[in-house]
Amino acid sequence: MTCTCAYHDQLIEIRRHLHTMPEEGWSEFTTTAFIVGKLREYGYEVLLGKKVINPDNCLGRNLKVVEAGLKLARENGVSEELLAEMDGLTGCVGVMDTGRPGPTLAIRFDIDCVPVTESTEDCHIPAREGFISKRPGLMHACGHDAHTSTGLAVAHWFADNVDQMNGKIKILFQPAEEGVRGAAGMAASGILDDADYFLGAHIAMMCKSGEVSVNPYGFLCTTKLDVTYTGRPAHAGVEPNAGHNAMAAACNAFVQLLGIARHGSGMTRINVGQLVAGEGRNVIPSHAVMKMEVRGETGEINQYMYDSAVNIIKGCALSQNCEYTIEKMGEAVDLTNDPELVKVLTEAVGNVEGMTARQDPMNFGGSEDATILARRVQAHGGKAAFFVLGADRPSGHHTAKFDIDEKALDKGLAVWANAIKLILK
Amino acid sequence: MTCTCAYHDQLIEIRRHLHTMPEEGWSEFTTTAFIVGKLREYGYEVLLGKKVINPDNCLGRNLKVVEAGLKLARENGVSEELLAEMDGLTGCVGVMDTGRPGPTLAIRFDIDCVPVTESTEDCHIPAREGFISKRPGLMHACGHDAHTSTGLAVAHWFADNVDQMNGKIKILFQPAEEGVRGAAGMAASGILDDADYFLGAHIAMMCKSGEVSVNPYGFLCTTKLDVTYTGRPAHAGVEPNAGHNAMAAACNAFVQLLGIARHGSGMTRINVGQLVAGEGRNVIPSHAVMKMEVRGETGEINQYMYDSAVNIIKGCALSQNCEYTIEKMGEAVDLTNDPELVKVLTEAVGNVEGMTARQDPMNFGGSEDATILARRVQAHGGKAAFFVLGADRPSGHHTAKFDIDEKALDKGLAVWANAIKLILK
Amino acid sequence: MTCTCAYHDQLIEIRRHLHTMPEEGWSEFTTTAFIVGKLREYGYEVLLGKKVINPDNCLGRNLKVVEAGLKLARENGVSEELLAEMDGLTGCVGVMDTGRPGPTLAIRFDIDCVPVTESTEDCHIPAREGFISKRPGLMHACGHDAHTSTGLAVAHWFADNVDQMNGKIKILFQPAEEGVRGAAGMAASGILDDADYFLGAHIAMMCKSGEVSVNPYGFLCTTKLDVTYTGRPAHAGVEPNAGHNAMAAACNAFVQLLGIARHGSGMTRINVGQLVAGEGRNVIPSHAVMKMEVRGETGEINQYMYDSAVNIIKGCALSQNCEYTIEKMGEAVDLTNDPELVKVLTEAVGNVEGMTARQDPMNFGGSEDATILARRVQAHGGKAAFFVLGADRPSGHHTAKFDIDEKALDKGLAVWANAIKLILK
Amino acid sequence: MTCTCAYHDQLIEIRRHLHTMPEEGWSEFTTTAFIVGKLREYGYEVLLGKKVINPDNCLGRNLKVVEAGLKLARENGVSEELLAEMDGLTGCVGVMDTGRPGPTLAIRFDIDCVPVTESTEDCHIPAREGFISKRPGLMHACGHDAHTSTGLAVAHWFADNVDQMNGKIKILFQPAEEGVRGAAGMAASGILDDADYFLGAHIAMMCKSGEVSVNPYGFLCTTKLDVTYTGRPAHAGVEPNAGHNAMAAACNAFVQLLGIARHGSGMTRINVGQLVAGEGRNVIPSHAVMKMEVRGETGEINQYMYDSAVNIIKGCALSQNCEYTIEKMGEAVDLTNDPELVKVLTEAVGNVEGMTARQDPMNFGGSEDATILARRVQAHGGKAAFFVLGADRPSGHHTAKFDIDEKALDKGLAVWANAIKLILK
Repeated sequence: MTCTCAYHDQLIEIRRHLHTMPEEGWSEFTTTAFIVGKLREYGYEVLLGKKVINPDNCLGRNLKVVEAGLKLARENGVSEELLAEMDGLTGCVGVMDTGRPGPTLAIRFDIDCVPVTESTEDCHIPAREGFISKRPGLMHACGHDAHTSTGLAVAHWFADNVDQMNGKIKILFQPAEEGVRGAAGMAASGILDDADYFLGAHIAMMCKSGEVSVNPYGFLCTTKLDVTYTGRPAHAGVEPNAGHNAMAAACNAFVQLLGIARHGSGMTRINVGQLVAGEGRNVIPSHAVMKMEVRGETGEINQYMYDSAVNIIKGCALSQNCEYTIEKMGEAVDLTNDPELVKVLTEAVGNVEGMTARQDPMNFGGSEDATILARRVQAHGGKAAFFVLGADRPSGHHTAKFDIDEKALDKGLAVWANAIKLILK
Repeated sequence: MTCTCAYHDQLIEIRRHLHTMPEEGWSEFTTTAFIVGKLREYGYEVLLGKKVINPDNCLGRNLKVVEAGLKLARENGVSEELLAEMDGLTGCVGVMDTGRPGPTLAIRFDIDCVPVTESTEDCHIPAREGFISKRPGLMHACGHDAHTSTGLAVAHWFADNVDQMNGKIKILFQPAEEGVRGAAGMAASGILDDADYFLGAHIAMMCKSGEVSVNPYGFLCTTKLDVTYTGRPAHAGVEPNAGHNAMAAACNAFVQLLGIARHGSGMTRINVGQLVAGEGRNVIPSHAVMKMEVRGETGEINQYMYDSAVNIIKGCALSQNCEYTIEKMGEAVDLTNDPELVKVLTEAVGNVEGMTARQDPMNFGGSEDATILARRVQAHGGKAAFFVLGADRPSGHHTAKFDIDEKALDKGLAVWANAIKLILK
Repeated sequence: MTCTCAYHDQLIEIRRHLHTMPEEGWSEFTTTAFIVGKLREYGYEVLLGKKVINPDNCLGRNLKVVEAGLKLARENGVSEELLAEMDGLTGCVGVMDTGRPGPTLAIRFDIDCVPVTESTEDCHIPAREGFISKRPGLMHACGHDAHTSTGLAVAHWFADNVDQMNGKIKILFQPAEEGVRGAAGMAASGILDDADYFLGAHIAMMCKSGEVSVNPYGFLCTTKLDVTYTGRPAHAGVEPNAGHNAMAAACNAFVQLLGIARHGSGMTRINVGQLVAGEGRNVIPSHAVMKMEVRGETGEINQYMYDSAVNIIKGCALSQNCEYTIEKMGEAVDLTNDPELVKVLTEAVGNVEGMTARQDPMNFGGSEDATILARRVQAHGGKAAFFVLGADRPSGHHTAKFDIDEKALDKGLAVWANAIKLILK
Repeated sequence: MTCTCAYHDQLIEIRRHLHTMPEEGWSEFTTTAFIVGKLREYGYEVLLGKKVINPDNCLGRNLKVVEAGLKLARENGVSEELLAEMDGLTGCVGVMDTGRPGPTLAIRFDIDCVPVTESTEDCHIPAREGFISKRPGLMHACGHDAHTSTGLAVAHWFADNVDQMNGKIKILFQPAEEGVRGAAGMAASGILDDADYFLGAHIAMMCKSGEVSVNPYGFLCTTKLDVTYTGRPAHAGVEPNAGHNAMAAACNAFVQLLGIARHGSGMTRINVGQLVAGEGRNVIPSHAVMKMEVRGETGEINQYMYDSAVNIIKGCALSQNCEYTIEKMGEAVDLTNDPELVKVLTEAVGNVEGMTARQDPMNFGGSEDATILARRVQAHGGKAAFFVLGADRPSGHHTAKFDIDEKALDKGLAVWANAIKLILK
């Protein structure tokens, strides 16, 4: 059994520090700088910028958000030299080669936050204990602060124990997981093309503290879309008939989109997360933008949702005499864990006191772009798995009172360490 | 001044008789037979069938309704000989030529009922006094019983006074006014092509007992449409995704149709009066039918409504992967009364004690296919007018408690008689 | 191994005969008479009327449909005596007691059809081979003709082999399974209250010829609802504002109903299978009726769907100033097969050459009111199971070209016979 | 006849200057400062701040917009002293007392812009001749630049001719007419409570250059509303069922709002000019805001629209389990010009060469909060009128290419001067 208790303070401290400074996908310059600093401190070679992200494959990368992130990084004292290395692209990969023959293991942690305003109520621990987000409107409400902190603790532990290991480790700190945007660019960089094994994990979700789901299912395939409608404005009092109402196109699309028939063969999801339409109160609205997503239990079902959505979007443009555009903003696929790694994970969990490996199928019920990375590895014959590290949580993911049982971090680190030893030792 | 009191009993009796036996548009065989009998009794030449209706121009003529009307007529003892004359087409025209030179005057009365179930409450006079509709689901709830009764009283009076008249009179009993369906076929028969003058009237509407609106405006142009959607059925539990939901197409079209922007240049109307969709409870609906109408203050505005509706109907077919059809079922146009006839009507009303001719523009606010007949006459240089004979009414047109102040019938007859004398004497 | 080949001709002949004469739920008087005749011929005691259906618990029993079914039965020569026994209630139970001690086994077959118009295309075997439905608009498109035929063959075989059996058999021929309406009344009759074992089956669904799913899951809990909206009519041209538009309430409810959010914990379904709204084309619609259903993978999820639907229905009544009613028309629950019977079925299938018992969970993906009967038996400690007899089919259930591979009938009968022997021999 | 040609250069120059610097309602600090400077130059007493606006009656005054306007004013060099006089409230009133007995005449000009981005195409005169808006997203696209310029020219002319006048003139420069927000506060300040006469005007609209509509009708009564829905967020993949979808409430309200039945007694309008809903793409939206307006030809019809809208808003909150708020943001009423002033205007127009006074009812077809001011004056027995100064325009009001025929300004000034002389001379 591996003792990882030495990293307890680091785990909590870094998690709480990151919790105060959430950054949105593609803007995590300050967060990346923090990670780079730690990785270099631990002795890693750190890859950045186009070495880890292929800019041609970035999805949903909003330049205004990038600019704001850069500005903030400068205010936070990130050096121009480091920003030049990043080249406008967030995320990084720490590489450590043991120098001994052995497999290459890639492990992945995601680093971005969600656009939620954190609760300031006293019952919310980050508020009560003073590590609440300092950036209203942004919050680590999906546990990526814990992921990053865990990734750095794993890195630290591995560096401390590198003499007992073989092969090579690549530790991916991926940007922009929210919206399943970042993985496509990271996969396309080729950084995983020599990986024999790939492991990723998410904290909490459907697992309580003490449980680890080593064979989850229900990674919903998903496509993220931005839809715009453009109509024609008109004075709503004088000649409303002269308008082509883009808001009407959007609202009628919305009600039809939510009504896409469920699929007989598996789970589907659809959401329009944001709708902004119109100009002045007395002007027939001539613009509308919808940020939406579809999901399906399989690629085929996701495609059904996507095709149905496109039909609706087109039809409403026709009905309301508007133009439309559809832009793909993100995507994730499904995943089946390779049995070899399920076995590794089961053993890794079994070696941690008080932890249970749940091998029964547990429903992840969401999308994860780690699946894009996993598929990249599986495509060349590598093995991949994704597991869920249980953690009690007082509130749902992406809500203002989301928090995790911090005790789960120590056990999670032990699971990671055990699994890595089983693969690389 | 003309005394028409002799016709009082006939007016009431026939109106009440007809009230008990309402017949829907294109099925008024029994009603037509009744009218023909009276007209022949009064000495008129009576034209029937294709002489008064061009079958190529019939709108909204449902063969099942026609068959049911024929069946009922046979049950009511209408002779096969008369039915053969009718040739499947309802309505008739009574012609009486004075033999003296003079203009040809066409006057028009409509004879069909509406699909409303009549109130059986005691406060409703037809229920209390025993002349309620004997045909549940059908009712003379727009006063066409009064129109027909008035037409026959006018016919009787004219026949009695023919020696004092010149020229020729044609008394049109038009079928299928509801849905503005019957006039197009009657106009196309050519029956009006020798008319120098055309007069039509509606009872009640926006006028109280004692008032006659001699120059109403707001005859909304209208187009009646039947829309069908055809999708694909599927088991709603097993594979709902396999369906193409025709009800979804219809309901989403409905909500958009009602939302067609008002027009800056004048009144618009839209209604879907009937929607029937679906099959079994657990089957994704594969059929939907909408009976609808659009209206506009002018032809151009009506066209705007029609074009907007068609766009919506098409778009919803696309959105929901369904086929659609659109069939025109009726139409009416707008009308401006010729000043010469406004003057005639004003004088005709002025000569009836206790009646006031309202020359100010009063809003008819509905559609009337008498306008199609009027336009046919105006097209060859004839003069046309439509007036509204006021009558107090306890409830709105087309409602279960619609009724009219029967005292208005006598005065209405007097107005007709005066007007005819002014034109033909 | 049991030889049931002797019943081959009977199986096909009766199935094809029934296929020509589909009857809707609660109207299956002619079908019931046919079954009764056969059962009595085989020597069964036959229970009818209130002995097998508690009329207080009938769901979705439309009296017009019942009347039409009675009329048809009389036209078909069903005796008044037998109709008196039925007492207006369709379905029956054949009972045969071996006289020897042993358990009571209840087995259930459903007998009604669906409102689908059968395909007349030559590629459709019932059309080509002359046993197409003689009743346009109705069709055995869910295989209940095969169920009934199988039930009668089982009855015949059991009677022929009763000397080798112990205990008692009750063969339920249940009406009105479509819409999951009939089981509630049959359960409430108490007919199952002495049953130690209950077995039911469905043909085809997700199983191919040769497969039997002995442990299916995904019996969606369901509630069937009839919703009415009542508004206020008004002339759509004259004063549309005076109307309270019941069609608007229904259509806006419809679009929101389809949009009820999917559930994170399991499958949901919603369908409005029929919508009838409105009166005349130019009348603001004052009535609307929706026949709808919700389903959920569990009782809790079904309740979520039901509650969400009720909120929407209420809200649309408020939005459109209409009154509403909600009436429950049917229900089914979920089911977990008792392991003892799964074992029995597995062995029963294994004993039929060329058949495979699929013990892996296969998704039934629909609702079945046999679950109501199963739950009744389980409630007093009996064992229950439901299995799916595979049969290739050219088209989906409830579609115009639905048909089954008739060869599956022989094998199905063998499975039934084997299972009965395992329980009663 | 009055010669006002001396003011031609001023008219054009000031209109073009103001056109470059559009300011939104309640933020017109720079514009107000400009007006104040001119009025003081011409010798007027100028009232500001709470003397002309009662802050308790401000509708639709957004504090962010106010702050931005103040910031801009400071950047533009407006003195702190003047800003202190304004006290956060824009608009002003110039008063000049002739010292001679006579009536008090209040005339009103509005000064704010609309949120439209001006066309930069060469065919658009302000673009070609270099006086295009310098503030992208804002534009004088309703002619209030011309109104203000005309008001200042009238002020200048009156000051130059004060010796020939009697009584007192009050020249109101009203903020925030767009959205009909500013008049309520100005009326409530009491500034009009001594006015014997009130005149207001709008340029262009339904009148061509050379025409003046002296008796327009169709000032639609209107109410402006902000509606918010608050639901409950949830992860759209993990447990969409846990959300209460505020966007669904808003979109379904939207489609029903547009579908409010037309009114049989007169024009109605409804528009949702802006809808902003939702947060993250994968979060069930928990907030939605709609900026909307209803209009009606009369107060009663406007109330019908308002009441119908409120019902829909409430119903959708119920349907989607959301909270809602409704806040009134603006209002205007209808207006009938007093005949005495119609006569004055007719004569005033008749005295300008090449101009025609259209006394026939011309449809204004929009809302104007000058009606609120007019009603305040009529309420204490004063006389009020509003007229439309024709001006050719290449594009509709509130569109990116709106512009006016500047030659209309000279003639408009002459009409104003003539009318003032008829009242005060």
